[in-house]
Amino acid sequence: MDQSYPLSGIRVIDLGQIYNGPYATFLMAMAGADVIKVEPRHGEPLRRRSIADAGSLPLALLNANKRGVTLNLKHPRGRELLVALAGTADVLLENFAPGVMARLGLGHETLRAANPRLIYASGSGYGRSGPDRDDLAMDLTVQATSGLMSVTGMPDGPPVKAGGAVCDFLGGTHLYAAVVTALYDRERTGRGRLVEVAMQEATLPTLVSNLGMMHLAGGAVPPRTGSRHGGMAIAPYNVYRCRDGYVAIITATDRHWLNVLDAMGRPDLKDDPRFADNETRAAHMEVVDKLVGDWTMTLDRDDLLAAARRHHIACAPVRDLTEVAAGPHMHERGMLTPFDHPDLGPITAMTSPLRFDGLEPPALSPSPRLGADNADVYGGLLGLSADEITALEDDGAI
Amino acid sequence: MDQSYPLSGIRVIDLGQIYNGPYATFLMAMAGADVIKVEPRHGEPLRRRSIADAGSLPLALLNANKRGVTLNLKHPRGRELLVALAGTADVLLENFAPGVMARLGLGHETLRAANPRLIYASGSGYGRSGPDRDDLAMDLTVQATSGLMSVTGMPDGPPVKAGGAVCDFLGGTHLYAAVVTALYDRERTGRGRLVEVAMQEATLPTLVSNLGMMHLAGGAVPPRTGSRHGGMAIAPYNVYRCRDGYVAIITATDRHWLNVLDAMGRPDLKDDPRFADNETRAAHMEVVDKLVGDWTMTLDRDDLLAAARRHHIACAPVRDLTEVAAGPHMHERGMLTPFDHPDLGPITAMTSPLRFDGLEPPALSPSPRLGADNADVYGGLLGLSADEITALEDDGAI
Repeated sequence: MDQSYPLSGIRVIDLGQIYNGPYATFLMAMAGADVIKVEPRHGEPLRRRSIADAGSLPLALLNANKRGVTLNLKHPRGRELLVALAGTADVLLENFAPGVMARLGLGHETLRAANPRLIYASGSGYGRSGPDRDDLAMDLTVQATSGLMSVTGMPDGPPVKAGGAVCDFLGGTHLYAAVVTALYDRERTGRGRLVEVAMQEATLPTLVSNLGMMHLAGGAVPPRTGSRHGGMAIAPYNVYRCRDGYVAIITATDRHWLNVLDAMGRPDLKDDPRFADNETRAAHMEVVDKLVGDWTMTLDRDDLLAAARRHHIACAPVRDLTEVAAGPHMHERGMLTPFDHPDLGPITAMTSPLRFDGLEPPALSPSPRLGADNADVYGGLLGLSADEITALEDDGAI
Repeated sequence: MDQSYPLSGIRVIDLGQIYNGPYATFLMAMAGADVIKVEPRHGEPLRRRSIADAGSLPLALLNANKRGVTLNLKHPRGRELLVALAGTADVLLENFAPGVMARLGLGHETLRAANPRLIYASGSGYGRSGPDRDDLAMDLTVQATSGLMSVTGMPDGPPVKAGGAVCDFLGGTHLYAAVVTALYDRERTGRGRLVEVAMQEATLPTLVSNLGMMHLAGGAVPPRTGSRHGGMAIAPYNVYRCRDGYVAIITATDRHWLNVLDAMGRPDLKDDPRFADNETRAAHMEVVDKLVGDWTMTLDRDDLLAAARRHHIACAPVRDLTEVAAGPHMHERGMLTPFDHPDLGPITAMTSPLRFDGLEPPALSPSPRLGADNADVYGGLLGLSADEITALEDDGAI
């Protein structure tokens, strides 16, 4: 890796699984770190799922630019090797259930005793303390417990999850952030430390609008608002149907509202006191949404977007994933890139949302096959001979 | 601020507005940085909205532990003062529309010419380059364009937004991450740099399950799956109604499925080939969901949760925000804390999802009133006299 990348020279032992941990270490790999993905001999859960194919693209996307080894933490030699790997590393990251590593005798005190500069990063659903610590946590259940699900969906329908794994990735992003903060801190103190992020806590801040509405209502439960503003405080702010799809429209300022009226050909409404400012429009939300929705239903999406652009209205297409993956914008910026994956064939890969001036996203290398770098890591990094490596494999330790 | 906090000694000039930028700098303040929130004389948009009250709690939550000054960037003296502030700082962060700072003569080249160690952080909807750069971007519109909205909602209903401002906060978290990465890099190079994050790109990774399903379908648009798995690859994985609410249940392993059958009192189904493993269960998703849903409808939520805990099933309550805010877990961990805000009265405040061992979340200080720290910052930091500050206020520069 080019030495100009900010995390070049940093080595990461990545015990991450599924999405939360692997995304944090994906960001590290894309920032230049040497990330060694450590999996059990039968593969991490997402790889096992990928044998039935459903996880294969996610596994490939989130583990690009990492090396891959197998390691059996239930084998005494396997545990010794993990301690040895941690001794060569700057960061060890795991998102097992809280307590798993300690029960293996590989808790952060043990590893940091062996390497005081090690940053031990722990991602979990609810954190390493507190009464809910041991509740089983995946993206879906954290969407439920965090309150996010309760405010997602139509007012007259059931609560529904956000369609992306937002809790896994909010958690993973915060976990990357915590690790790099600790790396920065280590420059001053010389010491590593334990950092941890709970997915539930990483999700909570997204609900500030809804919490604001609850506060104003004296603590009453905020209703689901569909695609309206979580605080019911802005109008227009909604998803509107057009002839061949949907658009999202939001008016951040009164100027935007006047622009909407111009686009609708309704300048006569500019003096209507019901729409004088955002507060009065929010108080007449049904009327406002009907006015706008009746207009959008008369137009095709592309024509609507063209009109919105002419009139400087914040109006966006509700794009499906084929449009997202093929759209020129993220390709031009290098966030999306065609990639020929050795196992999957041609895919659209992603790079990192973190952009540093003067640095292109690093060239992509494919996600490792299971144990692909055993020889490289156990030989090159830990100095084991080929015979020793074969013996460890035969013994079920790696 | 206690010197043991990882970002103590770091000064941040915070031009952030609404959620995206202010969340990034909130994380910095909670990690020990001295954050100076810079607002126009009439307040940033969220503060203006807060005059009608709806934004008041979000403004308070996201701007705790910051200092606050007013500054008129349209005034020549105001611009000079910003350059002077940037000269004292480690980080300047803004989430204006791309190009706004350059048009003011305050682009990153200008500011970094004055202070080569400055990290200039730019948050936006679509980034500083590319054909969609200038599209007006807020959380709602980015939910639409990023594809997140297209996969959120019931299969037979319209696309709907995630109920939290997930794009704003995914963007803000990545922006914090980019800044701290650049701070770490600066330890080695001595130079600051421009970092940028686009909210759309920060959202894209959350869609890997859905992109995986699209890949398997040969590029066909993935349907909305309601609360089912985005890749339709796991069963049971859904939200189920019970007598007095909803729960989310997910079976990550076949063992979990056997546990579900035990909890349901249906051990007779353990040998049913339709349910033999996750792949076959996913192929019989309707049957699986009906089995589970018929069971959950017979129970109250608390009884269902108790049964799930006994049988080690990943089952979580769909909690409303009153339950979230009052639940003991995040209070015990210090993520939520009662706080007496001077303007709002008693509120439930939040601290940071980033946890560093041995460090409690810092004591909270209230979000600043507009211009509350003008004397402190322009006097104490830039060395202006009380008369000069008064003259600047009278002249409309601050």
